[in-house]
Amino acid sequence: MANPIFAPELLELITLEDTDTLQDVASSMHPAEMADFVAALEDTDVWRLLLLLPMQQAAEIFSHFDLDRQVDLASDVNRQAMAHMLEALPHDDRADLVNRLEPQVAEQILPLVARAEREDIRNLTSYPEGTVGAIMSSDYATLLPEMSIKDALEQIRLQAPTRETVYYIYVVNNEHLLIGFVSLKDLILAKPTQTVGDMMNPEVIHALADDHQDTASHPIEKYDLLALPVINAENKLVGIVTVDDIMDVQEAEATTDFHKIGGTDLIDVSLKEAGLAVLYRARVPWLLVLVFMNVFSGAGIAHFEDTIAAMSSLVFFLPLLIDSGGNAGSQAATLMVRALAIGDVRLRDWFSLLRKEVLISLLLGLTMALGAMLVAGFRAPEIAIPVGLTMICIVLFGSLVGMSLPFVLARFKFDPATASAPLITSIADIGGVLIYFAIATWWIRDILSDMGG
Amino acid sequence: MANPIFAPELLELITLEDTDTLQDVASSMHPAEMADFVAALEDTDVWRLLLLLPMQQAAEIFSHFDLDRQVDLASDVNRQAMAHMLEALPHDDRADLVNRLEPQVAEQILPLVARAEREDIRNLTSYPEGTVGAIMSSDYATLLPEMSIKDALEQIRLQAPTRETVYYIYVVNNEHLLIGFVSLKDLILAKPTQTVGDMMNPEVIHALADDHQDTASHPIEKYDLLALPVINAENKLVGIVTVDDIMDVQEAEATTDFHKIGGTDLIDVSLKEAGLAVLYRARVPWLLVLVFMNVFSGAGIAHFEDTIAAMSSLVFFLPLLIDSGGNAGSQAATLMVRALAIGDVRLRDWFSLLRKEVLISLLLGLTMALGAMLVAGFRAPEIAIPVGLTMICIVLFGSLVGMSLPFVLARFKFDPATASAPLITSIADIGGVLIYFAIATWWIRDILSDMGG
Repeated sequence: MANPIFAPELLELITLEDTDTLQDVASSMHPAEMADFVAALEDTDVWRLLLLLPMQQAAEIFSHFDLDRQVDLASDVNRQAMAHMLEALPHDDRADLVNRLEPQVAEQILPLVARAEREDIRNLTSYPEGTVGAIMSSDYATLLPEMSIKDALEQIRLQAPTRETVYYIYVVNNEHLLIGFVSLKDLILAKPTQTVGDMMNPEVIHALADDHQDTASHPIEKYDLLALPVINAENKLVGIVTVDDIMDVQEAEATTDFHKIGGTDLIDVSLKEAGLAVLYRARVPWLLVLVFMNVFSGAGIAHFEDTIAAMSSLVFFLPLLIDSGGNAGSQAATLMVRALAIGDVRLRDWFSLLRKEVLISLLLGLTMALGAMLVAGFRAPEIAIPVGLTMICIVLFGSLVGMSLPFVLARFKFDPATASAPLITSIADIGGVLIYFAIATWWIRDILSDMGG
Repeated sequence: MANPIFAPELLELITLEDTDTLQDVASSMHPAEMADFVAALEDTDVWRLLLLLPMQQAAEIFSHFDLDRQVDLASDVNRQAMAHMLEALPHDDRADLVNRLEPQVAEQILPLVARAEREDIRNLTSYPEGTVGAIMSSDYATLLPEMSIKDALEQIRLQAPTRETVYYIYVVNNEHLLIGFVSLKDLILAKPTQTVGDMMNPEVIHALADDHQDTASHPIEKYDLLALPVINAENKLVGIVTVDDIMDVQEAEATTDFHKIGGTDLIDVSLKEAGLAVLYRARVPWLLVLVFMNVFSGAGIAHFEDTIAAMSSLVFFLPLLIDSGGNAGSQAATLMVRALAIGDVRLRDWFSLLRKEVLISLLLGLTMALGAMLVAGFRAPEIAIPVGLTMICIVLFGSLVGMSLPFVLARFKFDPATASAPLITSIADIGGVLIYFAIATWWIRDILSDMGG
């Protein structure tokens, strides 16, 4: 699906107000593609184009711009045009947009939106970020239980053009309580003599609007659903969450975890678009905390000044040994954080995983000790044994801290991903310095006592 | 949806061969739930239950066991029963299962499978891991272009029970070339007098069976599709990839990246289930490489032995300074690896991001230098200035290595996530040691020359 025309030609069509050709161009592409295609135009030209297209088509294209661009566009046109656009946008997308508008812009536009749509926007924007309500949409299809299959199909035909999906249809009673579910597949397979109530599935997997959005993501993934109905505290149907929304949520959550494990707090921001101040604030807190934590490593080294003076070759192995603890710990923490995030591992698995980690880190430590002792053999054979012993202890220490800290954090309701690689490295460093010089001091105790005497 | 009966009662129903009650129980739950519910039973009891249920229902439950359990079950029953199960399983699931069976087990079962189904299995299992072909399913719904809408709906009713989805339907000609697409929604909205060819969309977004699975994941996400048709080199329709498969692929890919950034190569394995040998092999290679890399840091320290001897307080700041470079670098690398993975950032953005990184790391370095100089003020005011200068240089060095290495790797077709936090930390350490002691040596050059003289 190559672009049928180039941007300068598009601009010419807009200037000529060649509505027919523009509608043909827009119809030949997926709205997401069309949005990419016109994204390079100035805001005013985008609006000239959108206003030449049928409103429904324009809204589909608009909904595929990224949110920042939508905000710019919304602030850059007359309020009446934007109010009409809001009426035509998918309900979840327009709620996200209104949430992001400058308050004074929203206050000017919303009074111009039709009353029912305005109330829908107010409802959807009332749920706090991170809840199911904040990602749900209210343009779902519904049926009443007493309808015949024939009437039901007729209803679906009427609802189809304005609904997010008609493949999953929810059955509600007169009080809008969720009482059942039918799929469009079931409907077309049903005998025409049945009613919706006869054939509906009364056990509907659902989510609560006030719950965390993870509670919607889990059943959609587990049961391979296309959408999940959302009810409020009174059991009334208030929205649906669709599988494409959940894909976006999961991608955003994986990104947040990824950033956290690297020791940054960059959330819901494009790295490419993020400004200096945002990036600085996302990175500086942990860096500063770790600077001050590392004072303890320095103090550890200073404490063992006599040992170092007595055997200066010890310093050569310092980075190699203490980094190894940090590396093994980062590995363990990363594996554990991800396993907790995807539900592969739960809090109750901590003890059995701890036993496994002890065995593995002993094996790893032994292998790395052989490597380090090989280096020591060339460089300083007199300390090969304390170097090897230290390696085993340090790798064990780093690994156990790395695998346990995510569990401890999760246990006390903190985010396990706070156990970032840099944090584990710094903790492992402090432990590593103390372990290394304690073993070394014991190893060269005769030399030290000679010096002392 | 609480479990209606407990496991012992279930076992009793199985022993009594109470088919009616068992079918009721199975029908009252989602197959995924039923699979969880019976997972605790012995393999033989699972089979007794499955063989009491209608084959289609049994297959749906079977397809929701995890793959390891499916392999156990397949190897633990008479070959004829397993052959019938393969005939009834979703096409993509059975291909995955056959790929995982011991060759001798597969060789005994496959000849008992009906010929057409056996050929389908052979086709699907012929695509290498990581390709679109390896995740696609062949149970898609098709229509011919000359069909009337009425006949088409009748066809869909016939195909529905055995197809992965009937919401997206693909139009093929007599040579099975993919020539169009209709959705079930379009079909129920169409005028009965139209033909499928009249109303189909001839521009079908599709993937190639031999391409990397990312090429299927991208359009499904971008265009919010429920499924994507897959064609072979001759443009023949050979399968579909559904959105739930793509969710699994994306979760697995995010997990792999997550593990890589932590310096491990654990791929497609549950951390909870993984054995000692698997975990050891996933973790030891990088740990050993890094041990030997850190020899350079040690050599750097040894090289500056005279400087350290002349000003022993320098060692106090060593961990604090060199870790800061690694921490800033890990942050930069993590941000960049994820941004490249989700397409937020592309190769061509390197230069503009580099400029931004220089500015940010200078700001970060300056802040951290103030922190380090504060510590130095208490501890060793005589070296506060070289400590501060070193911090700025080290944070700049670590950040630029961390942000650039993922780009370099991607440029040469390696996985950017290979730029793991431990690797960046080790590179930053080597640079950090050299920067620190070079600055310190210059700072105390008068003391050193006095000692030398």
